Amino acid sequence: MSAQANSPSQSLDGKRVVITQANSFMGPPLVKAFNQVGADVIPDYRDLTHDKAADNLVCEVKNIDILIINLASQRIRAQATQITDQQFNTPFEEMVYPLFRLGRSVLPQMIERQSGKIIVLGSAAPLRPFADASAYATARGAQLSWVKAVGNEVAPANVQVNAIAQIFVENQEYFPLEYQATEEFKHRIAEVPAGRLGTGEEHAAVCLFLASSHCNFISGQVIPFNGGWTN
Amino acid sequence: MSAQANSPSQSLDGKRVVITQANSFMGPPLVKAFNQVGADVIPDYRDLTHDKAADNLVCEVKNIDILIINLASQRIRAQATQITDQQFNTPFEEMVYPLFRLGRSVLPQMIERQSGKIIVLGSAAPLRPFADASAYATARGAQLSWVKAVGNEVAPANVQVNAIAQIFVENQEYFPLEYQATEEFKHRIAEVPAGRLGTGEEHAAVCLFLASSHCNFISGQVIPFNGGWTN
Amino acid sequence: MSAQANSPSQSLDGKRVVITQANSFMGPPLVKAFNQVGADVIPDYRDLTHDKAADNLVCEVKNIDILIINLASQRIRAQATQITDQQFNTPFEEMVYPLFRLGRSVLPQMIERQSGKIIVLGSAAPLRPFADASAYATARGAQLSWVKAVGNEVAPANVQVNAIAQIFVENQEYFPLEYQATEEFKHRIAEVPAGRLGTGEEHAAVCLFLASSHCNFISGQVIPFNGGWTN
Amino acid sequence: MSAQANSPSQSLDGKRVVITQANSFMGPPLVKAFNQVGADVIPDYRDLTHDKAADNLVCEVKNIDILIINLASQRIRAQATQITDQQFNTPFEEMVYPLFRLGRSVLPQMIERQSGKIIVLGSAAPLRPFADASAYATARGAQLSWVKAVGNEVAPANVQVNAIAQIFVENQEYFPLEYQATEEFKHRIAEVPAGRLGTGEEHAAVCLFLASSHCNFISGQVIPFNGGWTN
Repeated sequence: MSAQANSPSQSLDGKRVVITQANSFMGPPLVKAFNQVGADVIPDYRDLTHDKAADNLVCEVKNIDILIINLASQRIRAQATQITDQQFNTPFEEMVYPLFRLGRSVLPQMIERQSGKIIVLGSAAPLRPFADASAYATARGAQLSWVKAVGNEVAPANVQVNAIAQIFVENQEYFPLEYQATEEFKHRIAEVPAGRLGTGEEHAAVCLFLASSHCNFISGQVIPFNGGWTN
Repeated sequence: MSAQANSPSQSLDGKRVVITQANSFMGPPLVKAFNQVGADVIPDYRDLTHDKAADNLVCEVKNIDILIINLASQRIRAQATQITDQQFNTPFEEMVYPLFRLGRSVLPQMIERQSGKIIVLGSAAPLRPFADASAYATARGAQLSWVKAVGNEVAPANVQVNAIAQIFVENQEYFPLEYQATEEFKHRIAEVPAGRLGTGEEHAAVCLFLASSHCNFISGQVIPFNGGWTN
Repeated sequence: MSAQANSPSQSLDGKRVVITQANSFMGPPLVKAFNQVGADVIPDYRDLTHDKAADNLVCEVKNIDILIINLASQRIRAQATQITDQQFNTPFEEMVYPLFRLGRSVLPQMIERQSGKIIVLGSAAPLRPFADASAYATARGAQLSWVKAVGNEVAPANVQVNAIAQIFVENQEYFPLEYQATEEFKHRIAEVPAGRLGTGEEHAAVCLFLASSHCNFISGQVIPFNGGWTN
Repeated sequence: MSAQANSPSQSLDGKRVVITQANSFMGPPLVKAFNQVGADVIPDYRDLTHDKAADNLVCEVKNIDILIINLASQRIRAQATQITDQQFNTPFEEMVYPLFRLGRSVLPQMIERQSGKIIVLGSAAPLRPFADASAYATARGAQLSWVKAVGNEVAPANVQVNAIAQIFVENQEYFPLEYQATEEFKHRIAEVPAGRLGTGEEHAAVCLFLASSHCNFISGQVIPFNGGWTN
């Protein structure tokens, strides 16, 4: 039926979707969700901290319709007075420099085709402070600023770059089951209006929406996904 | 297939969706889009400025799963020094007080069912100023503040209240074809990174996303839909 | 000495400063602080909800260099589902419509002189939700939107309109001593990074800064004053 | 007179104020302004990109009441698709890593004394995009995120960390006279509501305000200083 053909998710049928670090952070539920809607999912597993990794990825995969930049970094707990040089460098090495390089590598083909999307799995950490997370929040804030600037820059070429400002979403890196059993977690989750973690399926729905060809009028934006924790 | 059953739009099948002022502003494309995904669309046409109109609507329709608050008001052009009492009152009478009343009338049943969504078609006008629009921007800003407060308040009951901060979207009220032919319009659209108006279909895709049962982890949020004009 | 002559506060010497509702909310410490720096303070006590009150004020006072719009409204505690028409109307009648009218009355003389300032004592309530305050937050949000729009509109005439987004500041209306003794207050103040209420003197320092002729490059802005509660 | 003694600027008398990179960016007018109000100004000229430079500065100067972090980096013009590794690294090396290190070095003494201020001269670039500035905006956005996180972290110790989100301010680095003569500049300044560059004196007034002991209730905040260009 035409109704089906027009549904946003259907528009992803056959689209080449690269998901970075596909076995960590939000990778597994995203691979599943994009496969379910018929996308041609290319999970990537390489370490993106190497300075040629982004170029290599794009060179190998060639045509990329949608690039999901799924980068996580251990949230080091350190006060601003205690943090080491390495502790504040690492989130940039793992989450910010790879972002620059992935954008630089993949955007030319998207601009040339006048079509393409980058979805950055960012964080709500820069939007509302929490304890001992300044290095992490700073790198995550850099990501959101990059998305705003670059999303603005490439929108005239019909390429969309957006971020999800997420927190309190189920994933092994930040919310393993053992952490969910702690008093600290219970105290934190009580501050989330939704009163629970978001699920991988719910998160994937945001990505499917942003990836859809029905979503070409949104670029350079930060979509909150955090149970109402920020606003 | 299970993939189909899981797609976000499918989750709207049979859902009772009320769209206010269904023949104006974003009403027509929304009625079409929600019908296409199988929702039970109840278009409403009443004047919502009357103080019993919201109660009457909810009393007549009874069960409402999703309420789309589609309210527009003529964007009066007046400098802050020239505006009349009526000119600044009118946007509140037409867009803000109906919002309070619609929320008050429909939220109790949603809270009781621990399920339901309100989507407010707001504006990006309060996010970036433009000339001679202070009254309009003020009322639209009030709408966004209401959404943030109430979306936070009802999220624990699994009810989601969100807004779309839209501008530069095709509709007869703000962008009639004659206006699109003016130099003023051409000057304004040149400031939109996407370089064009958003379509009714693209706008409907945002509403379908927010209306989906896969979107229960977002509440009290303002989703930008403006071709990158704000960020 | 020239150093003294150049100090920001000195620039207020002899300036005609009107403070509305001067015996309530932030009025008393502001009257004192502006008197101390040599301003010609005109405290005003009239009820500004009457539709001619703003015109009357400006007509009587004539030349106004700086208008401090000090408007408060009882923070009615009501859930969005319980609020009465009067309860959501009142904050607009008391805080939003007077703002429109005061701006309309006083801006023409400022624009003509190419000099003048309006300082709106707004609230951080629209920036971070708290329980059962949706009507109050909505009206306060409308104020901030008005400031952004009008501050932008009049900046080319060298007139500055700015707001202070304050909360947790000592005043009889919102934080009377009896309330400060409650458990609720203790719970709320524990969420303020500064761990205490701001004082009237500290608040006045923000107003003196915004009122200074050294502060002509800031317009349409919202200055946070809340002990770090928002950011 | 007591009025004099109470004025915010007077509170800086004898305070030890370090201004980094004092001969560039906003350094010269700041040195002058803080000297005029009687502060004990310690202009610093060292290159802060070296990993021991911040520690050395604090070790040499010892007691620092107020640290003004005045860091600039050439705004490299490069599209996101063209930028080199060095071009995106440099703004971080020059503006972000020194920020981490300066904060780490100076905050312990401030926390111990339960008194002290850091003022970061940031940028409005992350708040509103402009062409070919993604690397610069990303590093500047990282600065603002650091300020929000750390300002929140140290506020309980009565230490305040704030930023100024400035743009269109007179300085040799970004707005040399030759650039002010270009058509590009004239086009850009036409988008600033104030219609002009801010002056060094006006900028210094913001810093004097944030540095004052009357400004202890503001921490983790970003103060806009840009002629109304953002809001």
